[in-house]
Amino acid sequence: MTIPGPIDPPARLLMGPGPISAYPSVLRSMSAPLVGQYDPFMTSAMTETQELYRQVWGTRNEGTMLVDGTSRAGIEAAITSLVRPGDRVLVPVFGRFGHLLAEIAERAMAEVHTIETEWGQVFPPSVIEAAIIRVRPTLLALVQGDTSTTMNQPLDEIGAICRRHGVLFYSDATASLGGNEFEADAWGLDAATAGLQKCLGGPSGSAPITLSDAAVEVIRSRGRVEAGIREAGDESASDFVRSNYFDLGMILDYWGPRRLNHHTEATSMLYAARECARVLLLEGRDEVIARHRLAGAAMLAGVEGLGMTVFGDVAHKMTNVVAVEIPEGVAGDAARAALLEDFGIEIGTSFGPLHGKVWRIGTMGYNARKDAVLTTLAALEAVLRRFGATVPVGGGVEAAADVYAGRG
Amino acid sequence: MTIPGPIDPPARLLMGPGPISAYPSVLRSMSAPLVGQYDPFMTSAMTETQELYRQVWGTRNEGTMLVDGTSRAGIEAAITSLVRPGDRVLVPVFGRFGHLLAEIAERAMAEVHTIETEWGQVFPPSVIEAAIIRVRPTLLALVQGDTSTTMNQPLDEIGAICRRHGVLFYSDATASLGGNEFEADAWGLDAATAGLQKCLGGPSGSAPITLSDAAVEVIRSRGRVEAGIREAGDESASDFVRSNYFDLGMILDYWGPRRLNHHTEATSMLYAARECARVLLLEGRDEVIARHRLAGAAMLAGVEGLGMTVFGDVAHKMTNVVAVEIPEGVAGDAARAALLEDFGIEIGTSFGPLHGKVWRIGTMGYNARKDAVLTTLAALEAVLRRFGATVPVGGGVEAAADVYAGRG
Repeated sequence: MTIPGPIDPPARLLMGPGPISAYPSVLRSMSAPLVGQYDPFMTSAMTETQELYRQVWGTRNEGTMLVDGTSRAGIEAAITSLVRPGDRVLVPVFGRFGHLLAEIAERAMAEVHTIETEWGQVFPPSVIEAAIIRVRPTLLALVQGDTSTTMNQPLDEIGAICRRHGVLFYSDATASLGGNEFEADAWGLDAATAGLQKCLGGPSGSAPITLSDAAVEVIRSRGRVEAGIREAGDESASDFVRSNYFDLGMILDYWGPRRLNHHTEATSMLYAARECARVLLLEGRDEVIARHRLAGAAMLAGVEGLGMTVFGDVAHKMTNVVAVEIPEGVAGDAARAALLEDFGIEIGTSFGPLHGKVWRIGTMGYNARKDAVLTTLAALEAVLRRFGATVPVGGGVEAAADVYAGRG
Repeated sequence: MTIPGPIDPPARLLMGPGPISAYPSVLRSMSAPLVGQYDPFMTSAMTETQELYRQVWGTRNEGTMLVDGTSRAGIEAAITSLVRPGDRVLVPVFGRFGHLLAEIAERAMAEVHTIETEWGQVFPPSVIEAAIIRVRPTLLALVQGDTSTTMNQPLDEIGAICRRHGVLFYSDATASLGGNEFEADAWGLDAATAGLQKCLGGPSGSAPITLSDAAVEVIRSRGRVEAGIREAGDESASDFVRSNYFDLGMILDYWGPRRLNHHTEATSMLYAARECARVLLLEGRDEVIARHRLAGAAMLAGVEGLGMTVFGDVAHKMTNVVAVEIPEGVAGDAARAALLEDFGIEIGTSFGPLHGKVWRIGTMGYNARKDAVLTTLAALEAVLRRFGATVPVGGGVEAAADVYAGRG
């Protein structure tokens, strides 16, 4: 085998549903030298990161930390640690990632109940409450923002409903956190997880998680200390978590004052996660959400200005991604490939019932920017025209620029 | 909360049992821009990385890829995917990480049998074969290099034994791969996993894995496609893997020609893993092992030259780490802290029965270098003297330099 050269990616503006182009300072942070896992600098960087993410999540939860893996690792850690085999779990499904939560709960041997709504819609709280009353689950697992449909499920009334019925409330905020409101404490979340590769503007590979005291209590009741480092007085529960890597009790002990060795923290990804939260809080949490809202509104106006039809319930759309119907007669995959090859701009295809019917265009994290929005619309106009669509000249850029000028 | 500045780690020479200072080019690789997960550049970088790791592992296994998590994630993926609940697993334990394999297999609901040997020793193949005959396991799970004791378990005869008795053979090579011989095919491995943070010279957070065709067959027989992306004709087994994230069948489909979406590959960690393998193969696999052997021999001679006693069976020591008894009267943790604070050099403490008794000094990856060895020995001499030990003047540096000069 010829040994290839150093990694040298082509220039890309990532305007799909994620991953998106990371903040330059996040990329730089990962080149920082490593330190030992119990170096005082490392443990204080971990503590600092926890405090930063408390601000991002809107929580005072002690149990705020990172799971070392992609956003899916965070989901599995939450569900596997909170759900005992045979427990009932309710998953309202409004897109692909609801199916994923159900799937992960099934793997954890839960008795999984789902309710479904049409793709492009969200659930009214009353429907979720009725299902809770019927199913009487231990855990409600609910996606906040599902990129497969672009919908943003309102969560603000769900915590109170869960509390009323003694149900733990978990939400997957991978696609939404940082670009849409999220208030872990005010909304009564018991657990929430995310990834860096969406609105947080980093690479996939680290999963922020936050756990309420009630969630920690469930996890603690299932504690098990591994044989190699077990000491006198350490007791193990019989209904222990069926995973070592995802046993949040052990991860809590590693991030907590006991600093009990579990995995070796992924140092470079910790640096990245810390920087994602840092740049967000430096700009201001509300300001970043407002920037996403503006970029999202401009992109929405832009695609409509190009004569395209937006998919789904726009009133409940996430700020950071829009789904548009592929115009009649346009070869969707070929046009997307041309946008990538000729302009270096990536937009997304779709899954499941929307496959081949809609594109998904993201405006997230670093790329929730005016120049990224206008450039994408200019290139999209050119590609649509080359692929045979009749497109209003300059219609996309004009409409988006108007939104940025306050005339949208 | 005051928002902290960008990450800015102190200068550290990491000479512990890992993580160690990464190759500069590996750190640089992680600053490369992100691309989309189905960008042709990304999929070809994944394919390239698979081919690079086939060379590193010494295998032609198609099923050679990365698990997105720390080395422990790789271990759990291998064991959870290969072992059905109730299966018998045999784990020969010669240090902390043997206990970890047993623990992970217990979490996977296996019937776990262990044999143990004294810390500082390895198992003769005949002892392992006798245990296999007695236990009749489905899987033998055996650590290659256990940093807790520095021992390197010989594996070259174990594959044939396993084949003879119809047992799958898995090894955890986290601590050893890259700095010690490993021949996945020639030694008859069915599965092996590692991490980047030892001899491969990268950060923790990505776990290379290789799977034989026999292992893939077991994994495939337990296949399950998740609901959100299931298509007509996709069937699911009833004894499915009790994890979605660690279901190697799904990870194989993501890395294979089907490119079926599972997680979103951790792009920056992929870049790092690719670069770790690339620099190793550029230098040459045998040359890198020889460099580790030389650095390890020099460090061993050096600590003996300082009058210290080496722990364990030196004939079976890994090349890349040495354990030395803390000299009588020296406050071990305080001396280690002084080495870190005053010289910026990290060496390791120990676990379990060795805790407080030995230090572990690593010479791995980028730090398997003459200047790193000599600097560490010079600083260690100074610290030992300040902490009250009687130390031969220059004894460590002289002995190590002699090894480098071919006079060792």
